[in-house]
Amino acid sequence: MREKPLENLEPGRTVFETTSSVRPDDIDMFRHVHASKYQDYLLAARFDQMNRCYGISMEQFIEAGFGWYVREFQIEYKRSLGLGDTFKVRTWIQDFYRTGVRVEYEIVRLPDEKLSCRGSSHYTLISLKTQRPEPIPNWVLEKYTV
Amino acid sequence: MREKPLENLEPGRTVFETTSSVRPDDIDMFRHVHASKYQDYLLAARFDQMNRCYGISMEQFIEAGFGWYVREFQIEYKRSLGLGDTFKVRTWIQDFYRTGVRVEYEIVRLPDEKLSCRGSSHYTLISLKTQRPEPIPNWVLEKYTV
Amino acid sequence: MREKPLENLEPGRTVFETTSSVRPDDIDMFRHVHASKYQDYLLAARFDQMNRCYGISMEQFIEAGFGWYVREFQIEYKRSLGLGDTFKVRTWIQDFYRTGVRVEYEIVRLPDEKLSCRGSSHYTLISLKTQRPEPIPNWVLEKYTV
Amino acid sequence: MREKPLENLEPGRTVFETTSSVRPDDIDMFRHVHASKYQDYLLAARFDQMNRCYGISMEQFIEAGFGWYVREFQIEYKRSLGLGDTFKVRTWIQDFYRTGVRVEYEIVRLPDEKLSCRGSSHYTLISLKTQRPEPIPNWVLEKYTV
Repeated sequence: MREKPLENLEPGRTVFETTSSVRPDDIDMFRHVHASKYQDYLLAARFDQMNRCYGISMEQFIEAGFGWYVREFQIEYKRSLGLGDTFKVRTWIQDFYRTGVRVEYEIVRLPDEKLSCRGSSHYTLISLKTQRPEPIPNWVLEKYTV
Repeated sequence: MREKPLENLEPGRTVFETTSSVRPDDIDMFRHVHASKYQDYLLAARFDQMNRCYGISMEQFIEAGFGWYVREFQIEYKRSLGLGDTFKVRTWIQDFYRTGVRVEYEIVRLPDEKLSCRGSSHYTLISLKTQRPEPIPNWVLEKYTV
Repeated sequence: MREKPLENLEPGRTVFETTSSVRPDDIDMFRHVHASKYQDYLLAARFDQMNRCYGISMEQFIEAGFGWYVREFQIEYKRSLGLGDTFKVRTWIQDFYRTGVRVEYEIVRLPDEKLSCRGSSHYTLISLKTQRPEPIPNWVLEKYTV
Repeated sequence: MREKPLENLEPGRTVFETTSSVRPDDIDMFRHVHASKYQDYLLAARFDQMNRCYGISMEQFIEAGFGWYVREFQIEYKRSLGLGDTFKVRTWIQDFYRTGVRVEYEIVRLPDEKLSCRGSSHYTLISLKTQRPEPIPNWVLEKYTV
């Protein structure tokens, strides 16, 4: 059963954007970006935005003894990206949980901004020492409620 | 809105299994299999089972002018796989649609068969010529209703 | 035995540069870029430079019935790239052969431009129809002798 | 300049074999295995053989505070592998160095055993603590001189 989001903690749901481009090794036998690569694009955008937009890089989380593990991931494919395409990944925090966040995202092709795919992913904060979920500390929540 | 499954076509929902193992290039910075690789494991298992269990290989689909595109993919992660692990991918056709199938799956770690992840994926049959969805032909349905 | 370069055809050996950045899915169990990814960075840079610097994109080669296959690849690793790093890939055509080119390259980390790796790769022009090597046509040589 | 192999230490040059198969996500836009994946096949075979044939798994090296980093890699491509192919990776230690080994390898397609590619790779033993090369300890040499 799906965990309930926290009701007392309101995410700002600010949408952040990261622009990137398709690498030739992302292309599959049908000359489109291979299905599993879109999750990599999402992760790359989140890492960029953690650092640039929220102000806590993945390296800083690791130094503080934390990691983010993926708990759920969901994607709907609308239009394939292909060789040479550039695209924008838009993400925002939809919900907070005691030990994680639900991020929603969409990837749009450039320059026409047509929707390529969209979905959501639930990330859990874990202690690298115990490998168990940890309540999100306040210094993270302060930066994440933008 | 989610498309309705066909009611007049009953999938046999036979569960097929493919055994495989983790490659070192699948391992990520946390020394677990990288999140997006589980979809690759699922695809590899489906390709194996299309050929070995349903009797129509991906190459035969391509020769007949068809491809399978991923329309939706969903995954819940339960236990990470790691370096040197072997695992079993179990898949079955849960529902038929006019132009596609919904496959459900689970990946279990060997030898203890503990659940690593599970989810579902919607695949659409497309014409390689028009790049548009195609009704599943009878010669495919006959093999797929096991 | 290694094929001899053409002596009557002088490459300009102009060095082209492509800037890119490490994706989280490139990181391996030692928290460095995985060894095989540097070849992907080289290929991505060549695709970018084919289009932007030589004026014939890979898509245009494919439309003209040609592909480039890798015949040899060699790399010396000097300094690992890591999470969040950006880098420059410098490549130039070192030698022409009847049916191919030898490209040399180096990848430097930004912003300090310290050498990450360097090497060379031999690419063969093939006919997509016959899947056999083809002499490089003049319209390609004209653009490639910069 | 290339380091000289140790002369007082004779590798047995026993050839070990690992059988594996192509995954769909290894396939590129030309419907062949993507060029950089062969190095992943080599690494996967070495990891398997370290554990199964030499008797020291990568996990055991890591627990002992060691890692193996790739210093050089070289490959000649002869025949592409494709969708659904299985193959054998043969490797052997060609030379010992004070802090590393040169491994030679060939990958042959099954069942006809035709050569797909071959080459060599130089691996350096490093201390995970200092991230510097380490002389190969005797307990490793004993197992590696087969």
